[in-house]
Amino acid sequence: MVKVAVAGASGYTGVELLRLLVGHPLVDICAVTSRQHEGVPVNRIFPSLTGFCELSCEPLDVDVIAARADLVFTALPHKSAMDVVPGFLAAGCRVVDLSADYRLNDQATYEHWYQSHTSPELFSEAIYGLPERYREQIKKARLVANPGCYPTSVILALTPLLEHQLIDARSLIIDSKSGTSGAGRGIKEGSLFCEVNEGFKAYAIGNHRHTPEIEQELGQLAGFEVCISFTPHLLPVNRGILSTCYASLVKGHSTAELLDFYQQRYADEPFVRILPEGELPNIAYVRGTNFCDIGLVVDPRTGRVIVVSVIDNLVKGAAGQALHNMNLMYGFNETNGLEIVPTFP
Amino acid sequence: MVKVAVAGASGYTGVELLRLLVGHPLVDICAVTSRQHEGVPVNRIFPSLTGFCELSCEPLDVDVIAARADLVFTALPHKSAMDVVPGFLAAGCRVVDLSADYRLNDQATYEHWYQSHTSPELFSEAIYGLPERYREQIKKARLVANPGCYPTSVILALTPLLEHQLIDARSLIIDSKSGTSGAGRGIKEGSLFCEVNEGFKAYAIGNHRHTPEIEQELGQLAGFEVCISFTPHLLPVNRGILSTCYASLVKGHSTAELLDFYQQRYADEPFVRILPEGELPNIAYVRGTNFCDIGLVVDPRTGRVIVVSVIDNLVKGAAGQALHNMNLMYGFNETNGLEIVPTFP
Amino acid sequence: MVKVAVAGASGYTGVELLRLLVGHPLVDICAVTSRQHEGVPVNRIFPSLTGFCELSCEPLDVDVIAARADLVFTALPHKSAMDVVPGFLAAGCRVVDLSADYRLNDQATYEHWYQSHTSPELFSEAIYGLPERYREQIKKARLVANPGCYPTSVILALTPLLEHQLIDARSLIIDSKSGTSGAGRGIKEGSLFCEVNEGFKAYAIGNHRHTPEIEQELGQLAGFEVCISFTPHLLPVNRGILSTCYASLVKGHSTAELLDFYQQRYADEPFVRILPEGELPNIAYVRGTNFCDIGLVVDPRTGRVIVVSVIDNLVKGAAGQALHNMNLMYGFNETNGLEIVPTFP
Amino acid sequence: MVKVAVAGASGYTGVELLRLLVGHPLVDICAVTSRQHEGVPVNRIFPSLTGFCELSCEPLDVDVIAARADLVFTALPHKSAMDVVPGFLAAGCRVVDLSADYRLNDQATYEHWYQSHTSPELFSEAIYGLPERYREQIKKARLVANPGCYPTSVILALTPLLEHQLIDARSLIIDSKSGTSGAGRGIKEGSLFCEVNEGFKAYAIGNHRHTPEIEQELGQLAGFEVCISFTPHLLPVNRGILSTCYASLVKGHSTAELLDFYQQRYADEPFVRILPEGELPNIAYVRGTNFCDIGLVVDPRTGRVIVVSVIDNLVKGAAGQALHNMNLMYGFNETNGLEIVPTFP
Repeated sequence: MVKVAVAGASGYTGVELLRLLVGHPLVDICAVTSRQHEGVPVNRIFPSLTGFCELSCEPLDVDVIAARADLVFTALPHKSAMDVVPGFLAAGCRVVDLSADYRLNDQATYEHWYQSHTSPELFSEAIYGLPERYREQIKKARLVANPGCYPTSVILALTPLLEHQLIDARSLIIDSKSGTSGAGRGIKEGSLFCEVNEGFKAYAIGNHRHTPEIEQELGQLAGFEVCISFTPHLLPVNRGILSTCYASLVKGHSTAELLDFYQQRYADEPFVRILPEGELPNIAYVRGTNFCDIGLVVDPRTGRVIVVSVIDNLVKGAAGQALHNMNLMYGFNETNGLEIVPTFP
Repeated sequence: MVKVAVAGASGYTGVELLRLLVGHPLVDICAVTSRQHEGVPVNRIFPSLTGFCELSCEPLDVDVIAARADLVFTALPHKSAMDVVPGFLAAGCRVVDLSADYRLNDQATYEHWYQSHTSPELFSEAIYGLPERYREQIKKARLVANPGCYPTSVILALTPLLEHQLIDARSLIIDSKSGTSGAGRGIKEGSLFCEVNEGFKAYAIGNHRHTPEIEQELGQLAGFEVCISFTPHLLPVNRGILSTCYASLVKGHSTAELLDFYQQRYADEPFVRILPEGELPNIAYVRGTNFCDIGLVVDPRTGRVIVVSVIDNLVKGAAGQALHNMNLMYGFNETNGLEIVPTFP
Repeated sequence: MVKVAVAGASGYTGVELLRLLVGHPLVDICAVTSRQHEGVPVNRIFPSLTGFCELSCEPLDVDVIAARADLVFTALPHKSAMDVVPGFLAAGCRVVDLSADYRLNDQATYEHWYQSHTSPELFSEAIYGLPERYREQIKKARLVANPGCYPTSVILALTPLLEHQLIDARSLIIDSKSGTSGAGRGIKEGSLFCEVNEGFKAYAIGNHRHTPEIEQELGQLAGFEVCISFTPHLLPVNRGILSTCYASLVKGHSTAELLDFYQQRYADEPFVRILPEGELPNIAYVRGTNFCDIGLVVDPRTGRVIVVSVIDNLVKGAAGQALHNMNLMYGFNETNGLEIVPTFP
Repeated sequence: MVKVAVAGASGYTGVELLRLLVGHPLVDICAVTSRQHEGVPVNRIFPSLTGFCELSCEPLDVDVIAARADLVFTALPHKSAMDVVPGFLAAGCRVVDLSADYRLNDQATYEHWYQSHTSPELFSEAIYGLPERYREQIKKARLVANPGCYPTSVILALTPLLEHQLIDARSLIIDSKSGTSGAGRGIKEGSLFCEVNEGFKAYAIGNHRHTPEIEQELGQLAGFEVCISFTPHLLPVNRGILSTCYASLVKGHSTAELLDFYQQRYADEPFVRILPEGELPNIAYVRGTNFCDIGLVVDPRTGRVIVVSVIDNLVKGAAGQALHNMNLMYGFNETNGLEIVPTFP
């Protein structure tokens, strides 16, 4: 049994980690933290957890938590994460950090898009926690930087195309749409029910902070610097990200040929499902699970391929991928705690 | 391993049975039937099932299915169920029937609310599959009549009050609200997205077919005939039933005293959660699970108690309760296949 | 042209007042106030208003506003309203107050359910602004207390029954469901999209502050004190209230006979639509309008009548009724500014 | 007063035409047709219309309707429209056709994307009913082909860029998202509430029938043939289309400079609102109205401009634009019947 702590248990990512962890056969949850709800049982914050996890929230005291935990999931905002991650590592814990603080390799890029960083020396050690790409490194990692939700959906959608140089990477345009839980549980006007329901909008065009993360990973796949157009939108649903990716094909591959590359690339991946030709994914069919469903269409009129991927932003885009990483770090079966059938409707 | 068949696999109850059955450690799904989708793999009907169940739909041939199955779940409309249930029983199968055809004890009542019945001789054998009330009978049953969704929410909400004669049963008023999956997957104008979304209405006031079923079971608890007001409403959500039950108290019990009765009555029930005083249930906190959450308030101004219960209509209100019944019938752990943490948000 | 000011323009009631007022042929909006958004044009707060109203928000300075306005709509929280209403009246303005501060006739009742009152001397002057009941008094009023949203839906639903003594008023049970805009635009966790969407719950059972307001008005209709059970619920829709009202019939009237009473009572009312026998109202069919649609069913099994009414909580339940009151106060055509066809779907 | 008929009144476009027409001061609705609901008053099909329009549906008999009507709105499926439009014209009626049957100039293109055409001789006469582009021709037209919903949102979004040759037209990628009313009121599984709610998907990638219509009009603006990528998606909302349009800039214009072009181009247009720099449109802010709101951002990193436009698909995307066209055809004030303030929330 691995003893795990969840730092930041009162947000949507926190409760999702708890939902998944209580169903994991080899995990013992030893601590949950929340500054705002100190002393409150998590099942009073989230009655859904009643009967499954009734731990009370503690303050985030690194020494106290580290004394009990083998692994810490830090489900904190960026900046807050870097305040505690080095301490957990120093105290001998392994860390899966769900913030953006250790995802980028380059300090200047981080500081351009976020703010100054207090432990850039960890950048070289932190492993980008996308199992489909960095499985072996994750197994040995002390610090895993769990990928962002949008980047997960985009990188998985484009990996086979870039690995095989099938597209012109400069032509990449990514139009993403996210459910509202992606905005977190922080209270702000824009997240109110009446502001979101029956609405739809784009936001942060040209300057969303997931852009450098996507470009970093796509660039590594391409072998050169990649500069993308990335436009996120806010969907009036609780969960789900759908990314529609446009790229110009270098050669005239057909839909069937491209699907073959995808089938091969992901043949052994437990959480990627490639749809047959003629079918397109729907966020409704991955809800609550760690799956990434991918479909694609070649449009011979324009010479472009359009790849569509869907994930549950709180699972494959956050907590589920974090568990997957933990499973790899401890040599567990990769699907432990994640063998969940999507709930439809 | 029990070999089970799902008759009527292309409806929402059918897909929900499959979602739960594929996660059950002691079950082997040997057949799925659908007249409309004969020959189509269920995961083409419901892509959510891809990787979990890819059986093709067969026609509903009783002999063919019975030759393979130990247990048949009949997820068919009423009337269609009675056409096949006697055959399955005769062929040696056990049956959990999710239709209304064997829930009522009285042929005249059935025929008044539904239509004529072709196998009323089974009424005396069929066990009403509410484990919290008929656990021992279910264990030995050959034919279990799985309760309706509204009745499940109402009977569990009122059982402790009636068992202890705490209320005037003639005063019972039940105001229920159901998510749209309760209307099934049949295509009809009233179930279109634009007709339901941002709308809300009552329907079938005074004549909903679940009324006699509720009255039958409440009457048995009360020890005399009960006549209720029951008003269902259609909620613009996928899943969930909330029933608000009003009753005049016979004596002046307090909220805390009544909650004690509930806590005691359901202390050993794995799927009933009684909320502490001051909290009220929300359908969002039982989504995807077999839980029934119950809260209540005594209003001393009016001398009434208001009990509020919530379930997921497709789980505790249908497929989950059916699995629970199967677990009882085969001596499995009652929670097998049902140890699901609610997904929130 | 009447010069009107809207005090509290940045809430949902405020923007709804502006939506309706800009379409009113005889109104000139002379001021909008918002403490939070001082100096900001209302169309920056609500881009929907662009091209219709681009006034900047002012602080709520009674003397400054009163110097310009003939009529002030106070769309403020209770308690805040009583801080300014006496000043506006003293300065010669007429006031339609959308808060609860002047709706109750009895100071002790107000102070029991709310808090101490600083201008109870206005209680006897304030007219309860339900045109269907107090039309003549409203015409001459200096201070109109605009009814609450739930009370509007309930009082209109029950008026014919109580005026004709057709029901036992002690048997009244009212089960109401409101869209989320009823909770206002204040930012709080419970109003976040992900907390409300796909959820449903009851709240404030037995102690909602609209209870004494409903009881006051029903009591006046009945001719004696009335004590009701009132249970509000939160619907995952933007707009709409549906109230399901249960009462025991004194004599055995039929549905058709009762509908006759309703048709007669509301024959000349421009905003009440009585549905034919066999039809029930839906909040979707009054969206954006000042209509109250009412349907009813007599259940001979229980001897009860079930009356269902629907309104748009922001229109007939707030801003629309306020305009109706203004129209009466100034001798305008009652439907001016309110001739809106419901938008469906 | 113009006497108008609505052919196809029982769909969402039909009821929206009626909603707008009953508020038009110079229109007399003389007939509504519906094959499916012959003899049924439209307010029984759509109770929202009660008190506004209670005409009974007639069969679509061209001679009978033409004898009464000056103008016919044909709100019929493509193919059905061409069966009656020539007859109405021959009988002396003017026609605003809301189907796709007369939108394309080229018979071969029409027959490639749709089916064979029985009155291609009308192609040269039919005016594409986008007032912002063909105002003068519409005024004199006998037959107006009302634009598709997606094309309206896209053409308005791109007109200033193409008219001034600011972008490389070959780079155009259009990612559109539509509310579910765009799928019509026909009953099909994919339009059921539970299939759409909490879901999101792309569909018809590379082969949506609005593609040639968009390309025709963009090509005319560009002065040469244009070939676009167009991907529609299904949004779980009732109303609204948002189109995100990507194009490579030819010169390095800034956001402010481009917005200037837009402000100038649409300065006199009553239904186009250009948002200030830094703001992006939301479908929620045009709901129920004939507005098209447009925002844009230049991304200097990629050299692309991203233009986002929103409309209500049933109003500016169908019925509202049809009324606008009628106003032009009869010399009415362009905004008659369309002076509607968006309802928010």
